Amino acid sequence: MSHESPSLVPASAGSVSVIGLGQMGSALAEAFLAAGRTTTVWNRTPAKADALVERGAVRADSIADAVAAGDAVVVCVLDYAAVRELLDPVVGVLAGRTLVNLTSGSPEQARESAAWAAGHGFSYLDGAVMTTPPGIGRPSSMILCSGSPAAFAEHREALAALGDPVDLGEDAGLAALYDTGLLGLMWSVFAGWLHAAALVGVDGVPAGAFTPLAIRWLTTVGGFMETYAPQLDACRYPGDDATVAVQLAAVDHLLEASRARGVDTRLPELHRDMMAKTVASGHGQDSYARVIEQFRGA
Amino acid sequence: MSHESPSLVPASAGSVSVIGLGQMGSALAEAFLAAGRTTTVWNRTPAKADALVERGAVRADSIADAVAAGDAVVVCVLDYAAVRELLDPVVGVLAGRTLVNLTSGSPEQARESAAWAAGHGFSYLDGAVMTTPPGIGRPSSMILCSGSPAAFAEHREALAALGDPVDLGEDAGLAALYDTGLLGLMWSVFAGWLHAAALVGVDGVPAGAFTPLAIRWLTTVGGFMETYAPQLDACRYPGDDATVAVQLAAVDHLLEASRARGVDTRLPELHRDMMAKTVASGHGQDSYARVIEQFRGA
Repeated sequence: MSHESPSLVPASAGSVSVIGLGQMGSALAEAFLAAGRTTTVWNRTPAKADALVERGAVRADSIADAVAAGDAVVVCVLDYAAVRELLDPVVGVLAGRTLVNLTSGSPEQARESAAWAAGHGFSYLDGAVMTTPPGIGRPSSMILCSGSPAAFAEHREALAALGDPVDLGEDAGLAALYDTGLLGLMWSVFAGWLHAAALVGVDGVPAGAFTPLAIRWLTTVGGFMETYAPQLDACRYPGDDATVAVQLAAVDHLLEASRARGVDTRLPELHRDMMAKTVASGHGQDSYARVIEQFRGA
Repeated sequence: MSHESPSLVPASAGSVSVIGLGQMGSALAEAFLAAGRTTTVWNRTPAKADALVERGAVRADSIADAVAAGDAVVVCVLDYAAVRELLDPVVGVLAGRTLVNLTSGSPEQARESAAWAAGHGFSYLDGAVMTTPPGIGRPSSMILCSGSPAAFAEHREALAALGDPVDLGEDAGLAALYDTGLLGLMWSVFAGWLHAAALVGVDGVPAGAFTPLAIRWLTTVGGFMETYAPQLDACRYPGDDATVAVQLAAVDHLLEASRARGVDTRLPELHRDMMAKTVASGHGQDSYARVIEQFRGA
C-alpha cells in the first residue's frame, strides 16, 4: 500500500499536522497557524480544510502526506476506534515521529494506544484539551498530556500554542483519567450551581445577580480543597475548621428550603446520605474530607 | 423587668457588641478588636469571654448591658430560637440600635426576625458568614448581608473588620437563602472533587498532585457559569460551545471508569439522569444551562 512508504518530503522542524477538522480540530489548527507554525491539515471530507487553507494551512492530499509533513502529528477525531482506522494504514510513515492524540477516550484506550505506538516505533503523547473550542489558544486553558516524557519535552513549545501544556508523566492513561475526573467535577459544580440558581430564582433573584458570588465562592471552596488534599493522602481528617456533623445539620436547611420552593432534592439528598453515613460510622468530628470513604470502593 | 429599660450609658459611636462567644462569635469579636473597635462581649457562660477581655474587650455583666453598649449588636448563637430567647427580654434596649444577626437559619426565619425588629423599633440586618472561623478578618471572606439598607450603610465599615460585606438588598431573607445555596454548591464541589480524587487514587495519583489542577479547573468552570448565567435568566440556552448531547456521551466514560475502579457511581448517575432527561425532552443541542429545568419545579 503506497501509504506505508515514508513521504519523500521531510517535515520541517517544529511543523505540525492536524488530522480531523471538526470544531475542535479546526480550532487546534487555527491556533498553530496563529502561532506561526507550519501547519498541514487533513480531513476525510476535504472541504472542511478550505477555511484553514485560506488562512495559510497546507492541504494534505492523503493522510500519509499529512503524517509525513509533521514532526508532531495531532489527531482529534470522534473516538479511539477512528484513530486506529485512520492511522493503522500509515504506521510506517509515523515511525520516528510523535503522535499527539487529543481524541477523547478512556485511560485504558490511551494505554493501549501507547503500546501500539511503541510496537511501531513512534512516540506517543495522549492529551486532553480542558476547554471548549473557543478557549483554544488561551494561556489559561489546560492541555493535559501524558506519555513519552521525551516527546513532551520536544513538543511542549508547539503545544503551548493551544494553551498551557501540563505534563502528567509517563503513564499514557493519566490525561484521559484526569480529564474524566475533571469533567465529573465540572458537572458537579454545574449541578450545585443550577440547584442554587433554581432556589434563589424562586425568591426573585436573577442568576445574573447570584452567579458572580457563586464564582467568587468557588475560590473559597478551592481553599478548603487545598487544606483537605493532604488529609486525603494521609488518611487522617482532623475537623479543626468544620466537622461533618455540623454540615449534616446544615444540609437539612438546604433540603427544607428546596422542598419549600419545589426544587428537586436529589442532589442534596445524596450529599446528606454521604454525610449521615460518615457520621454513623463514628467520624462526625472529622473534616469533610472523610466523606471520600463513601466514594472509595469497599 | 429591669432589662427592658434602656441603659443610662450611651454607646460610643461605631461601637459593637458581640453576643454569643462560640468559635465563630469569638472570631468575630477578635476581628472587631483587631480593627480597633470598642467591643463589648457577652456569653451565657461568662468564662468564654475571658480570653477576649484579656485582649481588650469590655465584659458586659448582663445581656442588657451588652446591648446598650453597642451601636451595632452582633449576635451569633445556635439558632434563631436562641436569638429570640436571649433578646426578647431586652427589645426595649435594642430600640434605636441595629441588630446584626449572623446566626445560621432559614430565609423564612430571617424575614420573621426583620418583622419582629420592625415591631420593636430597631434596625435589622441578617448576615451569613461565608467562611470558617479562621477565615474571619480576611478581605476575601464574604459577609453576606440583607435587610435595612440604611443599617447596612451605617455599619458597613464595622462589618468590614470581618471580611467583605456584600449587600444583598432589602429582603432580609436573602443572606440565608444565598448561604444555603452556596453551601449546596460547596458540597457539590466537594463531592465532584472527592469522586475524582478517589478515581485517580486507584491509578496511584495522590490527591496532592490532582488537587491543584482541580482548583485551577474551577476557574475554567466559573468561566462557563459566567457564560451560562444570562441564559438562565433569558430561558434561552444556545449550545454554541458544547451541547448536553455531547456531555451525555462523555458522562458514560466517567461511569465506566468509576465502575472499573470500584468507585461509587451515584453522583455521575444523577448527572447522567438529568442530562438524559434534558436530551429526551428535545433539548440535546442546548447548552448545559438547560439542565436547570431538571431542578426547577414542575
